[in-house]
Amino acid sequence: MSVNHLEFDEDGLIPAIIQDIETNEVLMMAYMNQESLENTIKSGRTCFWSRSRDELWWKGETSGNIQEVEEIKYDCDGDTLLLKVKQTGGACHTGHKSCFYRGIERDYDTEKEFDPEEVYNNL
Amino acid sequence: MSVNHLEFDEDGLIPAIIQDIETNEVLMMAYMNQESLENTIKSGRTCFWSRSRDELWWKGETSGNIQEVEEIKYDCDGDTLLLKVKQTGGACHTGHKSCFYRGIERDYDTEKEFDPEEVYNNL
Repeated sequence: MSVNHLEFDEDGLIPAIIQDIETNEVLMMAYMNQESLENTIKSGRTCFWSRSRDELWWKGETSGNIQEVEEIKYDCDGDTLLLKVKQTGGACHTGHKSCFYRGIERDYDTEKEFDPEEVYNNL
Repeated sequence: MSVNHLEFDEDGLIPAIIQDIETNEVLMMAYMNQESLENTIKSGRTCFWSRSRDELWWKGETSGNIQEVEEIKYDCDGDTLLLKVKQTGGACHTGHKSCFYRGIERDYDTEKEFDPEEVYNNL
């Protein structure tokens, strides 16, 4: 296995973006250390490092919502991974397919054309 | 603008995955701080925080390869962003469309069925 080009951070971790191979939807992002990456490569299923529990985290071990790995890429400076997977069930612990189920609304800062209170209350 | 749900790390940064809105290809990942995120929301173009140069980084400022933001999502625990963009040119400084242009080959650890040197050299 060739992981020579990878840069793990000062905690020994590398972020891993998980993408659905069928729909190309981005499902989640989690972190891997050397051991979880090796587990992932050898088993063909995603294994992460849980920063909150401080332990190896075999994705789907409890929920059954495993991810079968079809492809592992790394970026130009080798400090981020991109894995394409076949997702069983949903990736998110909330039950959603993707962890990215909420969006930021843009504030366009447009001025109002009139003051509705003034217009409608004075009728 | 609603960024109340976001968790910036101890360096004040949040990872931002950039995805092409037309092809759904993951183009790159970079980091934003509060200011660069606000710049991004207000301008509709991506602005990151360069960890290597320690400064605001308007994507495409030098190369012209800007990213027009169509959608900003955040994940279930609010510590990762996903931006869908219209990418002008390529996202990667190497000239590639995506920074993820290299892959890790899986080592299937299969035993050889025969030793080719022995077989072919003894003919």
